[in-house]
Amino acid sequence: MEDTLDYVGKPVPRKDGPEKVTGRARYTVDIRLPGMLVGGILRSPHPHARILNIDTSQARRLPGVKAVITAADTAGVKHGFVETPRYPADQDPLATDRVRFVGEEVAAVAATDPYVLAEALDLIRVDYEPLPAVFDPEEAMQPEAPEIHPSHPLVKEPFSNIAGKTETQWGDVELAFEMSDYVRQDRFESHLRTHGYLEPQATVASFEPGGKLRVWTSSQGPFIKRAKLARTLGLPYSAVRVSKAWVGGAFGGKIDLFSHEFCAALLSMKAGRPVRIEASREEIFTAYRHGQPLILEIKTGVKKDGTIMAQKIRTVNNCGANRGSGVVVIFLAWGFVMLPYRLPNLKYEGYAVYTNNPIRTPQRGHGAPQVRFAVESQLDMIAEELEIDPVEIRLKNARQSGERLPNGDNVHNCGLTQCIEKAAEHTRFREKYGEKYGRGRSQPPQTNEQTPSGSIRRGIGMGVSAYFGGSLIYPNSSSCVVKMGEEGGATLLTGAIDIGQGAETILSQIVAEELKIPVDEIQVIAADTETTPVDIGAWISGSAYVSGNAARVAATQVRRKLMHLAAEELGVPVEELDMAQKSVYMVRSPEKRLSYRQIVEASIRKRRGDSIIGEGHWRTMRDEPTHPSLASTKGRWSENYAFDVQVAEVEVDIQTGHARLIRAVTAHDCGFPINPLLVEGQIDGQVSMALGHAFMEELLMKDGRTLNPSWLDYRMPTAHNTAISEYIDVITEAYKKDAPYRTKEVGEGYVSAILGAIANAIYDAVGVRLVSTPFTPEKILRGLGKLT
Amino acid sequence: MEDTLDYVGKPVPRKDGPEKVTGRARYTVDIRLPGMLVGGILRSPHPHARILNIDTSQARRLPGVKAVITAADTAGVKHGFVETPRYPADQDPLATDRVRFVGEEVAAVAATDPYVLAEALDLIRVDYEPLPAVFDPEEAMQPEAPEIHPSHPLVKEPFSNIAGKTETQWGDVELAFEMSDYVRQDRFESHLRTHGYLEPQATVASFEPGGKLRVWTSSQGPFIKRAKLARTLGLPYSAVRVSKAWVGGAFGGKIDLFSHEFCAALLSMKAGRPVRIEASREEIFTAYRHGQPLILEIKTGVKKDGTIMAQKIRTVNNCGANRGSGVVVIFLAWGFVMLPYRLPNLKYEGYAVYTNNPIRTPQRGHGAPQVRFAVESQLDMIAEELEIDPVEIRLKNARQSGERLPNGDNVHNCGLTQCIEKAAEHTRFREKYGEKYGRGRSQPPQTNEQTPSGSIRRGIGMGVSAYFGGSLIYPNSSSCVVKMGEEGGATLLTGAIDIGQGAETILSQIVAEELKIPVDEIQVIAADTETTPVDIGAWISGSAYVSGNAARVAATQVRRKLMHLAAEELGVPVEELDMAQKSVYMVRSPEKRLSYRQIVEASIRKRRGDSIIGEGHWRTMRDEPTHPSLASTKGRWSENYAFDVQVAEVEVDIQTGHARLIRAVTAHDCGFPINPLLVEGQIDGQVSMALGHAFMEELLMKDGRTLNPSWLDYRMPTAHNTAISEYIDVITEAYKKDAPYRTKEVGEGYVSAILGAIANAIYDAVGVRLVSTPFTPEKILRGLGKLT
Repeated sequence: MEDTLDYVGKPVPRKDGPEKVTGRARYTVDIRLPGMLVGGILRSPHPHARILNIDTSQARRLPGVKAVITAADTAGVKHGFVETPRYPADQDPLATDRVRFVGEEVAAVAATDPYVLAEALDLIRVDYEPLPAVFDPEEAMQPEAPEIHPSHPLVKEPFSNIAGKTETQWGDVELAFEMSDYVRQDRFESHLRTHGYLEPQATVASFEPGGKLRVWTSSQGPFIKRAKLARTLGLPYSAVRVSKAWVGGAFGGKIDLFSHEFCAALLSMKAGRPVRIEASREEIFTAYRHGQPLILEIKTGVKKDGTIMAQKIRTVNNCGANRGSGVVVIFLAWGFVMLPYRLPNLKYEGYAVYTNNPIRTPQRGHGAPQVRFAVESQLDMIAEELEIDPVEIRLKNARQSGERLPNGDNVHNCGLTQCIEKAAEHTRFREKYGEKYGRGRSQPPQTNEQTPSGSIRRGIGMGVSAYFGGSLIYPNSSSCVVKMGEEGGATLLTGAIDIGQGAETILSQIVAEELKIPVDEIQVIAADTETTPVDIGAWISGSAYVSGNAARVAATQVRRKLMHLAAEELGVPVEELDMAQKSVYMVRSPEKRLSYRQIVEASIRKRRGDSIIGEGHWRTMRDEPTHPSLASTKGRWSENYAFDVQVAEVEVDIQTGHARLIRAVTAHDCGFPINPLLVEGQIDGQVSMALGHAFMEELLMKDGRTLNPSWLDYRMPTAHNTAISEYIDVITEAYKKDAPYRTKEVGEGYVSAILGAIANAIYDAVGVRLVSTPFTPEKILRGLGKLT
Repeated sequence: MEDTLDYVGKPVPRKDGPEKVTGRARYTVDIRLPGMLVGGILRSPHPHARILNIDTSQARRLPGVKAVITAADTAGVKHGFVETPRYPADQDPLATDRVRFVGEEVAAVAATDPYVLAEALDLIRVDYEPLPAVFDPEEAMQPEAPEIHPSHPLVKEPFSNIAGKTETQWGDVELAFEMSDYVRQDRFESHLRTHGYLEPQATVASFEPGGKLRVWTSSQGPFIKRAKLARTLGLPYSAVRVSKAWVGGAFGGKIDLFSHEFCAALLSMKAGRPVRIEASREEIFTAYRHGQPLILEIKTGVKKDGTIMAQKIRTVNNCGANRGSGVVVIFLAWGFVMLPYRLPNLKYEGYAVYTNNPIRTPQRGHGAPQVRFAVESQLDMIAEELEIDPVEIRLKNARQSGERLPNGDNVHNCGLTQCIEKAAEHTRFREKYGEKYGRGRSQPPQTNEQTPSGSIRRGIGMGVSAYFGGSLIYPNSSSCVVKMGEEGGATLLTGAIDIGQGAETILSQIVAEELKIPVDEIQVIAADTETTPVDIGAWISGSAYVSGNAARVAATQVRRKLMHLAAEELGVPVEELDMAQKSVYMVRSPEKRLSYRQIVEASIRKRRGDSIIGEGHWRTMRDEPTHPSLASTKGRWSENYAFDVQVAEVEVDIQTGHARLIRAVTAHDCGFPINPLLVEGQIDGQVSMALGHAFMEELLMKDGRTLNPSWLDYRMPTAHNTAISEYIDVITEAYKKDAPYRTKEVGEGYVSAILGAIANAIYDAVGVRLVSTPFTPEKILRGLGKLT
């Protein structure tokens, strides 16, 4: 199969490259419409307060103010990242009777210029009655904690402020602990990070006189935005059209409906003019949605040889003032626990807890980095106790193809063992690990001749992760339309959105391959709720697999039509024909051929006037009757579980406590790579994200207020910080056979495995076991006994 | 059939109404792109000259000038309205070695603002050597006339400057003249008018770094623009994307490629920034393409009872400096001659003649108004001679369904007789015509008591015309895609363009009807060479029929899918189901039903993830092997010939010579009206155009220069000039049976019949026979003997 591939599996450069590197790419903020107003939002200064009164009269009277809105102007429809009977929407687009976090949206204004806007926002008077607030999730669970929303009704335990709960089990954990040779329990904590997308959140909304609302907004998929905008505005879907502009990064942070999107739309409806709202970076840091800091308590029982007998995990997620995706993370975390290792007995309970913090949203990995940091760290702690090699203990427990999973699914295909072996071999892990690198274990660190300078220690560590591709949420399928052009090229209409991951390039390659048309001659029209068919959107690592297969099916339909038309024109049976280089030719006499141009010409002009159009559809688990829901932890989750192993090499300065990643090697069973260049790009790009996560980025909050709301104080990695990133692709034989479309996930798993690998490498280097992220000099010095 | 119609055949208001009447509709000039430059064109001051040298160096050095282009910067590809082996392209986008009309495009500039632009255009030095010029077509045909282009090689006669020729015959004309009781020959001339579209010609072009040229341009269909832009720029079609904005009138004047479109594109490619060129009204009047002034010599032989025995027609078209559509008009004119009346013997020859005038382009009716003015005028002259009633002579010669036409086709369906009868009856034509209204015949006019004031005379006249729907040129088919929305509405993707005729409304009605979805819930995405499938464009009266049927077929496919999905969900055979109000229900127990929303939901979410999409294709004469070309006058032209009769009532002031139309009654066999409101709109709208044609509008030229290049001096009718317009629709039984999609043409025919009707009415009023348009007071006074 691979031998016959012309465009798929090849390192095709990104289609969006030239526009982006020349600065000509148009993002949402570049859109200019005649008569466009500037919109802005008045936010709550309190983490928790009752709203007694809002007086907008002065603001409304200010010349240049064209619309002012508060909750009173809305349809009163709540929304939520999840909207199900179990988890009804709990979020107002504009605060009604109370505010629940600093920065919550209270009112919005559209004005002719930003100066009038600023003055108008100042002129709005809001009377608040401050209420007691709570910020720590474990405090929020106490009975005496202030109530933020009514607790999740299914939680019978005496916990307050429970936004959602996931509880499941497999086997008999307690019995398995009894039968274990060694059991230990540890607590791990992760910290608050934001996504750090470079393009700020921005929306342009234009309510047109015919009653149509047009919206351009920085997003990860326009269909979900349309659905939520329509519902909150009280409009039919058909009255709302959401279109893409280029997206300058998202990483999970632009999926859901944001209040500025709702406000831009409603302000445009009130003012009768287009309205643009662009969030300032300070607003994004302060009031927008961030990642999910999890607390994990893990109890693990093993046999002497390292075989895991049981795991019991309790997760607490500080989910902020609304459910957001906090309730999804506690559900997914269970998946990230169960996937990579054989766990014959597993008990899991996860709580998403309301606090008076900003709301949470998915962030690359969506819980996996936090979960894998904890599990991989503890696994090394166990291995050390049992005096087993970290590679060995991972190989012993690694899942194999065909194994049954705790959710009832089976791992139909798994290259994890090869990943562990190849990563270990490539990095000479066993040589480097332990003695040779001055590992501390329980004794204090010693000087080691092999390290570059007197105070520097090197260490190596390994982490494992797994992921899945596809979506559990609306819409969970993708459709594509492919139409042939008059010159033999083709246009793909897809709802899939390129947020920098290369979706348009990959989909072009797939259509190019099916039709044997050069990639350059595939035009992509993407991500507009009206011109393009429905698509799952760029999340849960679904684009390449779900949208990709929809594109493939659509192209196949076109292929069939081209072949049949050519057969008619040439007067030969279709079985005697094949395709290459934009032509259909007779296999036995290849000089007898028709170019696609001739076929299209024949069809449109000479024949019955049919242009050649194909449609294709796909969803994960296409032949399964139902998908699992958040309510059920059982059932098939994916048909393409991906596995990856990551080895980190670090240097730690024992004088300053400063640790840095110097090399990251990834072995990834990510299926057949449609575009190896993009796979590497995903992985290289994540090195910097992992660096930021491990060492640099932390959103510091006190009493619900962000203390470092700027790029200066919230430190993101730059080129200066980059580590060496190497990549080993591991394609299982089964996937090689089924290439090219049995692709798996790439891009989320890596950032998931690396935190554990780094923590283990730091331990290897200096004997300090870090149980919370980030890995700061302060914590390392404290571990070294140099700070108290 | 009609009884079951919910949306088709109903007076649905136009979809584009609210945006347009509120001023919020965005036309091409409203498009703003970041960094956009303003472009402008340097034009020839000479009607005919050799270009010796162009020096752009000073202009290029001017700060703010970002690009300057001349022919030297182009790919050297010519274009033409017609591009065939018989009629190869003869038009340069920018003049090369010579200019052939005043206003011809010589160079173009893109600059940061209009002031710099104006200065830069001034700084370009062009050295010309003036050449002898010719403006009158009959002079241009003389052997000694200056040669503008090499003459058409097939013309053997000693005529110069022949751009094209059509010659055909049917029967034996000379024999028939011999057998006639009465033969007469007359010469008619028509004058130069422009289209008078209110939106000026404008183009925004943006060459993007990835190599894609995006173009928004005021047009009658983006596909032809893309084809011609790509070819002249030397780009593949796939590198050019042409999108619609709203179009503020076109009337034939925005079909073809214009140099400003080419220049905006090339300037953007050179400057690397978006470029907008907007033509000034003076440029449009002076240098853009206008209608076609024809000279017709008609010799007709009749029997005593008025039966036409033979007609011999010679047409000369002053086609300007390039072929333009001048060669199409002399071909179509033959169609407009042969269609309405039974002509057993017919000989036709038409010449398109190059002159040093601006180029010609189609104009509403595309030759028919000129032809029918001549034929209808002469028919009344014959009737008078034979002392036959004008109604009678028309009824005697009117075509009937099934008759064979001189092109070999047959009139499959014809309501002309009913049109004549109904129009005559409705206007009490026979009562009013002649004696009662003071008709002059050969004696001088007399005072008539029934006229409103002493010097006012009333008259009534009749005209007949016929038209066809569909297209002979590329692309000659339309395709549509219909996709179901999540709420049970639908989106139509069509390349058809709404230029004010209501295409989007009509196509929405058709989709609404097929799917039983309210018109408001049909979204239309129109006229973009990438998002939408190929379409014939808004010309040759093809939109409603060709694009309409493509939309119907696409909707039918969706209908079938909805029915099958509903059958599966309900577990009943599809034969037991029907559709109404966005639901599929069981015919025998209508309470058992599924809403479309439920069906879409089931398909996208519960089933295999298929969104519901249909495609449809259509072309005229879909089952014919070939269309006729300009080279052959034989073969089927249309499958829906439309017929119309127009009665004009005029008042003529014998003191001032001023004539005015007071009432126009149209009986139109236009098939089944998809939207009666739009049919009436088309007809009412044309009253003003006919008024302008008959009495007011004339582009005055001297030596190739336009003397009245402004709205002040080129007088268009306003509300003040409007006449009463009444409409009688004539649907033949055959069409009633096949409703709703056996629609015919409406919108071109009417303006075609009225000139003859008005000329005949003026004769009826005051006995003055006008053989040239417009019908000025000067000509009438001269006819009355009051001017010499």
